[in-house]
Amino acid sequence: MSVQEKFGRLGTDNAPGQEGRQKVGDLHKLMRGGTLEGVTVDFSHGDVDAFTPTPGSFEVFAEGVQRGGSQAYTEYRGAGAIREELAGKLAAFTGAPIDMDGMILTPGTQGALFLAIASTVARGDKVAIVQPDYFANRKLVEFFEGEMLPVQLDYMGTYGEAGLDLGQLEDAFRQEAKVFVFSNPNNPTGTVYSEAEIRRIAELAGKYGVTVIADQLYSRLRYSDVTYTHLRANGIDPENVITIMGPSKTESLSGYRLGVAFGAPKLIERMEKLQAIVSLRAAGYSQSVLQTWFSEPDGWLDGRIRLHQAIRDDLLKVLRDTHGMEVRTPQAGSYLFPRLPDIVVAPADFVRILRLQAGVVVTPGTEFSPHSAKNVRLNFSQDYTAAVSAVERMVELIERYRA
Amino acid sequence: MSVQEKFGRLGTDNAPGQEGRQKVGDLHKLMRGGTLEGVTVDFSHGDVDAFTPTPGSFEVFAEGVQRGGSQAYTEYRGAGAIREELAGKLAAFTGAPIDMDGMILTPGTQGALFLAIASTVARGDKVAIVQPDYFANRKLVEFFEGEMLPVQLDYMGTYGEAGLDLGQLEDAFRQEAKVFVFSNPNNPTGTVYSEAEIRRIAELAGKYGVTVIADQLYSRLRYSDVTYTHLRANGIDPENVITIMGPSKTESLSGYRLGVAFGAPKLIERMEKLQAIVSLRAAGYSQSVLQTWFSEPDGWLDGRIRLHQAIRDDLLKVLRDTHGMEVRTPQAGSYLFPRLPDIVVAPADFVRILRLQAGVVVTPGTEFSPHSAKNVRLNFSQDYTAAVSAVERMVELIERYRA
Repeated sequence: MSVQEKFGRLGTDNAPGQEGRQKVGDLHKLMRGGTLEGVTVDFSHGDVDAFTPTPGSFEVFAEGVQRGGSQAYTEYRGAGAIREELAGKLAAFTGAPIDMDGMILTPGTQGALFLAIASTVARGDKVAIVQPDYFANRKLVEFFEGEMLPVQLDYMGTYGEAGLDLGQLEDAFRQEAKVFVFSNPNNPTGTVYSEAEIRRIAELAGKYGVTVIADQLYSRLRYSDVTYTHLRANGIDPENVITIMGPSKTESLSGYRLGVAFGAPKLIERMEKLQAIVSLRAAGYSQSVLQTWFSEPDGWLDGRIRLHQAIRDDLLKVLRDTHGMEVRTPQAGSYLFPRLPDIVVAPADFVRILRLQAGVVVTPGTEFSPHSAKNVRLNFSQDYTAAVSAVERMVELIERYRA
Repeated sequence: MSVQEKFGRLGTDNAPGQEGRQKVGDLHKLMRGGTLEGVTVDFSHGDVDAFTPTPGSFEVFAEGVQRGGSQAYTEYRGAGAIREELAGKLAAFTGAPIDMDGMILTPGTQGALFLAIASTVARGDKVAIVQPDYFANRKLVEFFEGEMLPVQLDYMGTYGEAGLDLGQLEDAFRQEAKVFVFSNPNNPTGTVYSEAEIRRIAELAGKYGVTVIADQLYSRLRYSDVTYTHLRANGIDPENVITIMGPSKTESLSGYRLGVAFGAPKLIERMEKLQAIVSLRAAGYSQSVLQTWFSEPDGWLDGRIRLHQAIRDDLLKVLRDTHGMEVRTPQAGSYLFPRLPDIVVAPADFVRILRLQAGVVVTPGTEFSPHSAKNVRLNFSQDYTAAVSAVERMVELIERYRA
């Protein structure tokens, strides 16, 4: 594949955070009525002004700067002392030991995901991908010229399981998928995989020798009635799994760009080799901030979860009062993924109209699955009042454009 | 190429900063005599405790954290206001205008180099690479399965030019090299390309339609008698050149991981698409620190250059007093690349012995060229006294192991 073709397929115009670069074009011809007043809400990512970074994180960063050279120039896989402390905390959280040769700090979880896929997928390799799932999974497989084998997630199905089509997953493995990558909780739907689903994934991966990359970015932000099962502690071959996490979301530490991948040492070693030519290391001073992770003040995380649950519940009410709107209650994370009723404009145009007429920025469902054209994703980690008002404006526009 | 093969070729054991991961093995059998006492000096990178970050950089970072969400979540190519300010400064420095669609902020210059090569080199594409040059150039071309066409640099030749074999460069272009990547000042030798060399590179690139990636990381740290020629302002097609710089070296801001690439908008656009799946963006808060770049206090940069020149000159004296040692006077940057006299142990073993017996960490020449096995690279941005003493110990060990 030529470089032109490769980048032709790598669209980012609809990617979260890039809305400012969208061309407006002939959109005005489609618009009905005037604009709706209200505080602009950017649901493409969380609002770190509404939910501020972990208390003390800046102070720990400042100490890192004070430490100077040893913190600026760490090993490519990150500072040893910070990794060691973190390995203990993450082993406790996920319920299985972490080999000190099996952990790397990265520039964000995006960095970890890139390195993990680059280290396991070569041209022509088959990769099982969930639909819908985090948009970069698909793009990364395409970039490395792998072949995607989609596996559907029936996220509107039974509450208490994610709804993965396990038959389809086994078919993909039987067709010699080399890698399976998935997010748990699922991004964009917020569903959490049940213990039975996770155990079956582990069993199938073992049977067919598939490497699994589990993106558990949101696994700390879980609502009241949820049981979470860590893949790495549930029957999978430790030499064939990489788990990815990071303090960027729940803890609002995105501005520091930190992620961590842990698992099979042979894969972590590849990831480090590649990091050496991709970005050298996660920003040295930022690495210090990981010392605050899993060491937050008592009750801080619980409080944060309660506030998110309140926003979730009230937005769900507004959405469910809308005729024809379908939405799953997320069990974890801060995403809603409603399927909109039929409207007279194309979904992609509606997303742009929503931004221009109502000051509401959402991410189109097609970023996550070709079958989700009628969905939009909202990150509801926002100011409560602003978020409720923005979703009300979205609903008002849906009525205005209803088919 | 399978993933195994790809990573098998991607060695980092001798990469700067990774020395702690080297296996010692049977080295003790080769060692002569005891250890030499002295302060350990890690010449694999600059010492940011000896040359501290730009005054005010931490305060500007803190203001970025205060700004909150807008600084944490920038466009993938970096915050607009910061890019705009920087474009003006870099246009003035390099002597040619910068298109606002033609600039991206990256996690370090390593990030910029990765994105630039990934955006121009596909499998089988030929790439002209200077020998010696920055080790990642070669590794990146290998990672993307390009084919290297080496071009020799006669860096011990005439002072006042870098010594690039322009005939060999044209041969490479005639053999349909698609890309030419080089560092100026050259890393590891510190030579600066003459105006004639730069103009000829521009002319040949135009004639053969080659894209040029110019890594100008050290172009601010220039010694007293040096004329520096910016490729982008000297006759090259602006649609076929990317320039890379960053505040990580001269300004000791490496701990923030910042780089910038500027040039052809069509290539910058590809680089941004790729950054979206590699690391999203340069750490948001860190981006603020770029506001201090090219806005340092009066005289600060001159003072820094004077101190480096003093260290350079005194280390050169120690090296040149050693029989059989060959070393070029660097015109810019903070690298020395001496060629060692004949010794009884293999050069790679000597590098390890040097670390274990003398507390002196250097980077082996083979990282930069297959023809530089007898060279080592030293980053002399160090504490003056410690650096001189460390090089004296290196010389003492050379005498001990002399053939």
